Order: sequence, then structure tokens, then C-alpha cells
Amino acid sequence: MTKIKELKANEIGEIGIIRRIAKILDSGYLGDDCAVLEDGGDYLVVTTDMLHRTTDFPREMSGEDVGWMSVAVSLSDVASMGARPIGVVVAMGLPGDTAVDFIDGLARGMRDCAKTYGTDIVGGDTDQHAELTLVTTALGRVKKDKLKLRSGARVGDLLCVTGYLGTPAAAYKALIEGREAPEKDKKVLIERFFRPKPRVEEGMRLSNYKEVTAMMDVSDGLGKSVYELSNASKVGFLVDADRLPLLEATRRLAKSREELLDMAVCFGGEFELLFTLDPSGLDKVKDVDFTVIGRTVEAGLTLDDRGSMKPITCKGYEHLKKKRDDLH
Amino acid sequence: MTKIKELKANEIGEIGIIRRIAKILDSGYLGDDCAVLEDGGDYLVVTTDMLHRTTDFPREMSGEDVGWMSVAVSLSDVASMGARPIGVVVAMGLPGDTAVDFIDGLARGMRDCAKTYGTDIVGGDTDQHAELTLVTTALGRVKKDKLKLRSGARVGDLLCVTGYLGTPAAAYKALIEGREAPEKDKKVLIERFFRPKPRVEEGMRLSNYKEVTAMMDVSDGLGKSVYELSNASKVGFLVDADRLPLLEATRRLAKSREELLDMAVCFGGEFELLFTLDPSGLDKVKDVDFTVIGRTVEAGLTLDDRGSMKPITCKGYEHLKKKRDDLH
Repeated sequence: MTKIKELKANEIGEIGIIRRIAKILDSGYLGDDCAVLEDGGDYLVVTTDMLHRTTDFPREMSGEDVGWMSVAVSLSDVASMGARPIGVVVAMGLPGDTAVDFIDGLARGMRDCAKTYGTDIVGGDTDQHAELTLVTTALGRVKKDKLKLRSGARVGDLLCVTGYLGTPAAAYKALIEGREAPEKDKKVLIERFFRPKPRVEEGMRLSNYKEVTAMMDVSDGLGKSVYELSNASKVGFLVDADRLPLLEATRRLAKSREELLDMAVCFGGEFELLFTLDPSGLDKVKDVDFTVIGRTVEAGLTLDDRGSMKPITCKGYEHLKKKRDDLH
Repeated sequence: MTKIKELKANEIGEIGIIRRIAKILDSGYLGDDCAVLEDGGDYLVVTTDMLHRTTDFPREMSGEDVGWMSVAVSLSDVASMGARPIGVVVAMGLPGDTAVDFIDGLARGMRDCAKTYGTDIVGGDTDQHAELTLVTTALGRVKKDKLKLRSGARVGDLLCVTGYLGTPAAAYKALIEGREAPEKDKKVLIERFFRPKPRVEEGMRLSNYKEVTAMMDVSDGLGKSVYELSNASKVGFLVDADRLPLLEATRRLAKSREELLDMAVCFGGEFELLFTLDPSGLDKVKDVDFTVIGRTVEAGLTLDDRGSMKPITCKGYEHLKKKRDDLH
């Protein structure tokens, strides 16, 4: 009897795995940045994120940095729904040889990030694990008429983003790849890379505008995010390369325009909000800083690079995961 | 200059680590089986649990078993608060060489467990990981006057438990240690070990009785659970060995009375509810099956073994974790 070869996870890839799981669960496992639960008169939103040493935390990060980032990732998801965070729980898998000082730092970083955004670490689980593994779950609450999803973008809407893009990419190149840069630039980039600021306040403010038609965060990079928005809203996007908001330090670090655009569009690790805005809202939204980077079109994901039209094909956020040699 | 040796996690142990983290977070990281959030007129409860291959899932478990158990662990925590589950999110860390069939099974097991207890897997995260790692977070809701905590036990209350104790210990000995037992016994034990039934319905029913003064689940074993209850309620417990509810298969498998009591008191992995009951409630609670196993006393944790008084010293749930050679 011949044994039929078993199909392995790394043969169908992460996206294939997620699709299979989503089909079996049949309850919104794919979709927005948070799951949405009807709850009394409001919505309860919940998101869970697994981060671990080899793919998410460069050795240069302190315990505080790692703790902060792990909570920031989940708060960014809550922010992207327009929700107010109401609590975070953390599961920590710690190697036995982890320095106690590092663990203390982890807890301080988690606490500080939660408190900075108006919430707390309300509970958790601690376990021994071969690899440092942190799973943060954040809960949020939002009024029914203020919830923002990925599915509301309409042709003609403006495509907007908070803050800057490409910063994590630039920091990664300076820090991990050893790209030369002025110390001042490195400091700016690495600070933003290690202590990302989820746009919690901005998300709640944007939720007040009915002209904001769709929203998500840019954690997997702009390219993958417009792909997700386009899938959910059944529209396309035209992005203007010259409008992408970039720090001067990021511009200086890039070796070419091509690399700069790749950093801004494809690298990921961003903690900004991407949203679509009915043009009538442009003059109304005065309490959030953002940049219009393009617009919603009928179909296609296109980068207008000074008149040269390029398809946006990157899947995003693969660079940080280059130690993952399977499952992709 | 002499570098002072860094203190490592395995030098201060898991309990030491948890205490340090709890002190830094200062927001209820230690305490009940779930964190409790004020939310509208009710309470929202939330619990997160990290399980992984080497310490929690024997190789003999199918994907379905593993998925089921990972959700059951969190639902048991929700049950112990008297709450109704309203959603579960899961973070899955999967090795690249995991069989796709196993992953499909995982998802089915998770889904089936959630649906069996009236809820759904509403979202999650999938990641590549060197070791199979599952983190389930369950949410529940309970009316304010029905919430059950660990801290309400009063001297004179009866100590009660649902179902049977010692079953996971017996299954472990039969399955992992190869202890001989009739096939029929093995089947009964392993089925209960691999597909534990969280007492969700029982927890909700017990929450209706004001005579139930404290509640928690027995996941870490009876010994550790009475320790936790006694700490939270500032009381002691006297447990009657002859009243411990044990399956016949468990009794048959034990080599001695001493081993049988150790299995029932110290092994853990149980999915039962432990609660204290004002004696006036004994005749009122007719919709939940339970056994009175002892009573609340002024101080001390004591097992009355046919008149021989033994201190209950086990910390519980260490057996399953024997591959953990550090952090303890």
C-alpha cells in the first residue's frame, strides 16, 4: 500500500491556511481588523495578535520596547474600527533563561502603552516557552453608527493616511541591515520603529465623521492594505506617489526613488490609519492630521509615479519575516 | 569590573515571575479566572490562555482534540465566573511542517467546542511558529448581581465540585505512562481527557443562587484551587477524602489509595467547577449535579483521610508539565 504524501502547511502558504480555517470557522475569521460583536446598544470589538522573537522583535529592542509594541499592535486594530479601547489581556510565553529585568521591562512597556491610550492590562496568562511569544488581545467599544469597516469605500472617495509611511522600513535598513545614516536620522527612525504610536485618538475622532467611509490600519504595509480595502469594498485605488508622506530621514536613507517607494508601499510594520473620505468631508475633518494620497476608482490598484502607472503588487510585511523560510 | 550575574526567569520560578508582573501591571493580573470589566449595566469577563505542544498536547491527540481543548480551557474560565460566553478569538502559531489535515481538524475542533457552548470563534490571528502554540481568549457576560468570584467563601460554607476528579491523571497514566488498564476504562478516561467538557451551563445555573458564595474552575487541580480560594477568601478548607467524586475507571487504575488521592487532589487538568455554598442553599440547587467534598473552616488546607489529617501541600498541575525543566 502506498501512503499518499501528506500536504504540509508550508506547501499551501499562510494565506491558504487562513482561507481554509476561515471556511471551517465560517464566522468572520477573515475580515476587518477586529471581530465585531453586537453587545447591548453598542458594538464590542476584539482583536488578537501573536508576535514572537524571531519574526517581530529585533534583538536591539529592550523589554520595554517589546512590551510596548505588543500592546500597540492590538490597540492599532481597535483604533482602526473607530473604537475606544476598554481593556487588554496578554499571554506571555517566556523562555526559562529570560532575564528577570527583561520581563520586568516587558510588563512596564505593556502597562505604559495601555495607560497611554486610556486603558489597562486587565489580565493574562504566563507560560514557559522555547521562544519569546506574546499574544495581546484588545477589546474596544464603539457606538453602532460610528463603527468603521473596510467595506464602505465608494468610487470618488479620497484615500487618506495619518502620519508618515516607510518609517519602519527605513529603521530596519539602518538598524538591521547596517545602512549608513546620520546618527540623528537613525535615532528618529529607531525611536518610531521601537515605540510605535497607535492612532487611537485619531481613530475615535475619525469615527465621528460619516464622511469617513472605510478604515483600517496599515500594519501590513500600504500595498497590502489597499488590496484588503479594495477586496472588501469592491473598488480600486489610484495612489499618487508624490503625495506619500515620508519623513526626511526616510528620504535621505533610501538609495533610489524606487527603493523609497518600495519602503513606503511594501514594507509594512506601520501603525497608521488608512481611510477613505467622501470629498465633502475634506474641509470638515479638522481635528486629525492626515494626508490625501490618492482616490478610490472603479478597479485596479495603481501607483501613479509622476505619470508612470505601476500596478501595486506587493503583498507587504514580508521583509521583517525573512527568517520565516517556510509557510510562505 | 565584575559583571553582576543576571537573574533569570528559571531562578525565580513561574510564580515569582507572575507576582513581579502583577505588581508592575497593578490592575488585577492575578485574581479570578477572568478579568472583569464594568460594561454598561453588566460585567464583561475576559480570559486568555496559552497552550502549546510540549506541555499541553500529547502526540496522541488529533487536531480536533487539540482545537477542542484549547477553546474548552477558556470557556471553563468564563463558566467559573457564572458568565455566558459571547465570543472566542484564537491566535494560532503553526510550525511550517504541520499537516494541513491537522490544521483543518484544529479549526473544526475549535468551532465545534465553541458552538457546543453557544458561542463562536469570531476572529483570530495565524502565524508561523517553531512550536504549535494556541492562545484562546474568551469573552463572557454576566449580570452584576450574578458574578461569582474566588473571594466570597465564608466559614461554614460547604465546599462543592461538579463532576469527577482525578480523571485526567488516570488518563495520563494509562496513555502516557502506559499503565495497564482494561480497554473499556482507557476509552472512558481518554475520551474525557481529550474532549473535556467545560461546565458552562452549570456555571450559569450556579450564578443564579446567592447561596453560591465563591467559584473557580479546577484546571490546576483541587489542591491548588483550594489554595487559591483560601487566599482570596481568607479562610481555610477541610476536604473529606472519602467524598471526592471518582470514576470507577480512575479507582481501578490507581495502584494505591495514596496514589488515588494524589490523582484526585494534585494532578490537575480538570474542567470542573469548585464552589462554596451556604448550607441553606443545599436543598435549593436542584438543576446542577455536584458533590459536597468538604467545608470552609477558619484556616489551613487539610485533607481528612478517614480521620488522619493531612495538609494539602501540592501546587497542582506539575505532572503534565514535566517536560518543562526550567521555569519551575
